Amino acid sequence: MIRKITLACLLLLAFNAKAQQALPIYLDDTKPMEERVEDALSKMTTKEKIAMIHAQSKFSSPGVPRLGIPENWMTDGPHGIRPEVLWDEWEQASWTNDSCIAFPALTALSATWNRDMALLYGKNLGEEARYRNKNVLLGPGVNIYRSPLNGRNFEYMGEDPFLAGEMVVPYIKGVQSNGVATCVKHFALNNQETNRHGVNVIVDDRALYEIYLPAFKAAVQEGGTWAIMGAYNKYKGQQACHNSYLLQDILRDEWSFDGVVVADWGGVHDTKEAIYNGLDIEFGTWTDGLTWGRSNAYDNYYMAAPYLELIEAGEVGTKELDDKVRNILRLSFRTTMDRNRPFGSFGTDAHAKASRAIAEEGIVLLKNKNSLLPLDIKKHKKIAVIGENAVKMMTVGGGSSSLKVRYEVSPLDGIKNRAGNDFEVVYARGYVGDASGDYNGVVSGQNLKDDRSAAELREEALRVAKDADIVVFVGGLNKSDFQDSEGNDRKELELPYGQNELISDLAKANSKLVDVNISGNAVAMPWEKEVPAIVQGWFLGTEAGNAIASVLFGDVNPSGKLTFTFPVQLKDNAAHALNAFPGDDEVTYKESIFVGYRWHEKQNIKPLFPFGHGLSYTTFKYSDIKADKATVNQDETLRVSVKVKNTGKRDGAEVVQLYISDTESSLPRPIKELKGFEKVYLKVGEEKIVTFSIAKEDLSYFDDKKHQWVAEPGSFRAIIGASSQDIKGDVRFTLK
Amino acid sequence: MIRKITLACLLLLAFNAKAQQALPIYLDDTKPMEERVEDALSKMTTKEKIAMIHAQSKFSSPGVPRLGIPENWMTDGPHGIRPEVLWDEWEQASWTNDSCIAFPALTALSATWNRDMALLYGKNLGEEARYRNKNVLLGPGVNIYRSPLNGRNFEYMGEDPFLAGEMVVPYIKGVQSNGVATCVKHFALNNQETNRHGVNVIVDDRALYEIYLPAFKAAVQEGGTWAIMGAYNKYKGQQACHNSYLLQDILRDEWSFDGVVVADWGGVHDTKEAIYNGLDIEFGTWTDGLTWGRSNAYDNYYMAAPYLELIEAGEVGTKELDDKVRNILRLSFRTTMDRNRPFGSFGTDAHAKASRAIAEEGIVLLKNKNSLLPLDIKKHKKIAVIGENAVKMMTVGGGSSSLKVRYEVSPLDGIKNRAGNDFEVVYARGYVGDASGDYNGVVSGQNLKDDRSAAELREEALRVAKDADIVVFVGGLNKSDFQDSEGNDRKELELPYGQNELISDLAKANSKLVDVNISGNAVAMPWEKEVPAIVQGWFLGTEAGNAIASVLFGDVNPSGKLTFTFPVQLKDNAAHALNAFPGDDEVTYKESIFVGYRWHEKQNIKPLFPFGHGLSYTTFKYSDIKADKATVNQDETLRVSVKVKNTGKRDGAEVVQLYISDTESSLPRPIKELKGFEKVYLKVGEEKIVTFSIAKEDLSYFDDKKHQWVAEPGSFRAIIGASSQDIKGDVRFTLK
Repeated sequence: MIRKITLACLLLLAFNAKAQQALPIYLDDTKPMEERVEDALSKMTTKEKIAMIHAQSKFSSPGVPRLGIPENWMTDGPHGIRPEVLWDEWEQASWTNDSCIAFPALTALSATWNRDMALLYGKNLGEEARYRNKNVLLGPGVNIYRSPLNGRNFEYMGEDPFLAGEMVVPYIKGVQSNGVATCVKHFALNNQETNRHGVNVIVDDRALYEIYLPAFKAAVQEGGTWAIMGAYNKYKGQQACHNSYLLQDILRDEWSFDGVVVADWGGVHDTKEAIYNGLDIEFGTWTDGLTWGRSNAYDNYYMAAPYLELIEAGEVGTKELDDKVRNILRLSFRTTMDRNRPFGSFGTDAHAKASRAIAEEGIVLLKNKNSLLPLDIKKHKKIAVIGENAVKMMTVGGGSSSLKVRYEVSPLDGIKNRAGNDFEVVYARGYVGDASGDYNGVVSGQNLKDDRSAAELREEALRVAKDADIVVFVGGLNKSDFQDSEGNDRKELELPYGQNELISDLAKANSKLVDVNISGNAVAMPWEKEVPAIVQGWFLGTEAGNAIASVLFGDVNPSGKLTFTFPVQLKDNAAHALNAFPGDDEVTYKESIFVGYRWHEKQNIKPLFPFGHGLSYTTFKYSDIKADKATVNQDETLRVSVKVKNTGKRDGAEVVQLYISDTESSLPRPIKELKGFEKVYLKVGEEKIVTFSIAKEDLSYFDDKKHQWVAEPGSFRAIIGASSQDIKGDVRFTLK
Repeated sequence: MIRKITLACLLLLAFNAKAQQALPIYLDDTKPMEERVEDALSKMTTKEKIAMIHAQSKFSSPGVPRLGIPENWMTDGPHGIRPEVLWDEWEQASWTNDSCIAFPALTALSATWNRDMALLYGKNLGEEARYRNKNVLLGPGVNIYRSPLNGRNFEYMGEDPFLAGEMVVPYIKGVQSNGVATCVKHFALNNQETNRHGVNVIVDDRALYEIYLPAFKAAVQEGGTWAIMGAYNKYKGQQACHNSYLLQDILRDEWSFDGVVVADWGGVHDTKEAIYNGLDIEFGTWTDGLTWGRSNAYDNYYMAAPYLELIEAGEVGTKELDDKVRNILRLSFRTTMDRNRPFGSFGTDAHAKASRAIAEEGIVLLKNKNSLLPLDIKKHKKIAVIGENAVKMMTVGGGSSSLKVRYEVSPLDGIKNRAGNDFEVVYARGYVGDASGDYNGVVSGQNLKDDRSAAELREEALRVAKDADIVVFVGGLNKSDFQDSEGNDRKELELPYGQNELISDLAKANSKLVDVNISGNAVAMPWEKEVPAIVQGWFLGTEAGNAIASVLFGDVNPSGKLTFTFPVQLKDNAAHALNAFPGDDEVTYKESIFVGYRWHEKQNIKPLFPFGHGLSYTTFKYSDIKADKATVNQDETLRVSVKVKNTGKRDGAEVVQLYISDTESSLPRPIKELKGFEKVYLKVGEEKIVTFSIAKEDLSYFDDKKHQWVAEPGSFRAIIGASSQDIKGDVRFTLK
């Protein structure tokens, strides 16, 4: 029977030899993608297909080991590359090669109003993911800022769908240039954390299409994202992760998405819905190792053995399975199997530098009475820094976006770095925040615990403040539960830990008070009139303190603008005014399309700081606003231009904003809507012309009866502003 | 100061843009390797270089995260891909994607005497490594079998340097065709486990060059291995991992090795020696996480902070450091940064099939009196399988080669698989092995523990044996400490656990007794005359049981041959005859070049089974041995041919062996030495001519006075054998 030996041996060698000579189509990258997909699919068994559509560990899902199709490794989160965790536990794996560069939270990125910064962000972050061999980045998040209480707003890009869409596209292109997929999240209507797994969102089609979907649509159609993450909530009574309306009708059919739909971790609740309603890969949060009934807990996933059993019982076919696998194979060809993708880089100074540049551009100067800022080294020989957020780590905590960083510069250290020996910096904590959750890292040599009473802390702070030339209070929110953190919403618009009283007292103790508010959400500022200078600092990442110091000392001229409205009080916000947040088993978006500034303007409610607001250390003059025609056809582009001049004493940048107002419409429309913006850099005395192109889609509303976008003929205004409230002029035109 | 923002931003974007346009030389794979190496080197800081030359975890060492040069991930071992372990602990990481295919241990591979099998082995194993993203495979091992007590012999390729060299070359080529480096080990003179970290090996230059180095030289010069692992022991008083004689003089200077020298784990003992004596990357065994003095334990490595401190103090230069980094960069370009390397595959049926084919060819039929084998289904209706090794997992244990397998077929299951419903298989354990170490996996539904006394177990076995038509005893050694296992040597040549008595008793109980000996070493067989059929089974990997069953039942005609001598008694082995094993602080290889069959032949000691021995179920006739000339010049090749015919009733394969005998020589030489072999497949009645080419190097000895290879003119014999003792004829020729 030697024949058998020889034959087996020869067959094996022949197979190998053949494999080297004639590459199968799926491995031949000169072949068209779809041919490769079909070839690989045709070689796979049903079990291999089922394995591919659900997780095998906390962050990985299988490839096809037999065919050499690599595993897919996902990583949080939008702001940096999450450290390694154990295979099936959330505990960190104690690796020492995974200390990343933290980038500013997406609220800060959006506040740059600079598409190049989004590209820079994506490219650098993608390099970090690539070096760590992650092929799917779980972000960015583009859920619309509906209420300032949403605990996860800090991860998103504000209240305006146009702005979020414009910023997400270059972010995606930047990340994906590394052969790493973005997984844009959370699709869709995940606008609160309260009861996020159970709440059913009721929203009319106009609000859905005009407010909540555009950034996702841009991500798919302009950004070309290779993955989308389903949301936890329900819509029309169906979980968003297997939702026929969102995933099939809209994402696949209307937008022609050919990438992968990944479930948010634990967002799948039903096998048949997952099969038929457009989900591709299931991940889970609550899996508990090997302790479940089956030998491997992941076999219990809705898209695992239960799916296979339905197929084997003949209850469902394999058409949907094949479609899911096609989507996943495309992901492989675009990422792990792209032989030309770069190798990435990780934790580098170059990334830290990019992170700082973005942070510096995102910081918003909200108020600067009598030009108290920038700090004047000549006048301010002794600076008091007060507040816990001056020393608290903000890259750690807040949920899935929590990071392990190579380093994080605290505001206090940033100020001290800048001070050098030129002036004295004194510090008092002023208050102590809560210590909920695991994430309460405190830097700058401060202890986490402080046993002194609130009165003692305040007394010290006031003493230090009185004794200084100027006071910088660094407070706001943090990454603890019920603040800027995943899983819960905030309980109130107010600052926590008695900061309001402390700030008022500090203002009395020293009139030269600068408030640096660290948060990813609007906060109430009942003391606003008492404080001459207010800086919105966000969560700024690795270089946070240096970026803040650069702005405070004027090394950088602030140029960020708010991407959401700061209301005076909670009930000024639409969702709260209508008692439509957070709901319980369901929440109705009663305000419809009137979200953020759209509500404030419609109701004529003056905000604390409006959408688009942000000051500079220089001044800008707008003039010569004009349109290139008075009347446009449906297929024409209108050009509107404006001259902007730097009339102050410092070089600076201005975000010039274009809003469109539909002055007569069959359906209700917002007073105006953002449809263009350009950040323009101007040296002292320099003048530039900024031109916007306005096309049909910028004039359209979504007609929910006809289920289509309609640009209704009639009269429009193109409004130019330095913010949504600081209007510099307008031009009227007519759409035919 | 807006200039600063703009500039920073522009610089960053410009840098990125430039990077995309003009690829740096080190990333340009159209450029010559050495140019790329120098370019990358020129961009690195001293700290980055130091980081690269020592481990960061149990199995990984850093790349250059800043430059996108990936990390290096090593994996044991020679026979399969080790499961993931925790970052800095030996404990398995509980991943569920790392259950590999186990290939036969290298003793089994070498016993195939088939270079194609070595290529198949390497290619398949390399695919497994590649899919798991390991770029360095810690193997194969080619240390020469000097004593049957060496606990690690099972990982090596026998006692003959020519055979080991011929088999290691295709293994290397197979692995490296996947863009995965082999790391040939343990260089050099690691021929025992006793006191392996301290023992100083004293060996003369002839034995070093003729016996212990040739397989390494072939690995470097013919196989082109990209890495070599230093050994634990000392040579000339210096640790082998930083040994100026072995690593500098021989490996680098004589052999021109341009790859990486990796220290065996914990094999480094001195910073300065490591700097100057040719080591490139230090790995460690005893690192205990973050508990050492420095913040990261790996900073304590000899090639970490201590090296940097010497540089900073000006005590050592950076020339050696640069050379080490050059070697490591070459590794990167050859593996992780080779854009054309395949993607691998893992745990596949194809790999299991290859593993089985190799196992089937490696099994050696040592004795087959009256053609008891193959088992005759017609006669043997009831088969008794006896012995613990029929049910014991052999892929687990034994040290660093221990695996976590997708599956392992035990001999009992293999026999049952083959039996089907055709005949009855009964089992008795017969004896219970020790339970030292963690690795005592028992399969086939048997319990690890057995509380019955030895007498009860034996009584049961004898009862079962008497009642059967034929008895297959599956015993031998296992992977426990002091058997075939790393870290200790065996204590005796005898079989453990009372097997000798049991086998004798079984032979009395049933004369139709087949002994299947599972081991990676020779064992004493005092009962050899009592047992009609003996099969040497090795550690055969995933398909062990099926491979054994195939041979037992004649589905496969055995064609393996021994690659080391089975002595009758321990003192028949040279090292033991001369009381030169294992030594204490030092061991002197008193037998010099007379290792294995060279000793037996010189001393005229009849072995139990000689080197090269192995039977078939068919018979072969050798004839017409002739040479193409009677006299050869130094630069000529002599061709010796022999006709081999299958004269039996089954197709089969024969390993035709060529030995050279130098009949007159200035220096002592072995009676004969293996210098050629071919495995020839012959159908019933088929005849083939096997031709060997004999060149100068096949006639040479190493002249230790001149320190060079010398082919001394004079008379030689080319001897053809079916084993080293089963000589079929010879031809004489003269070298001029």
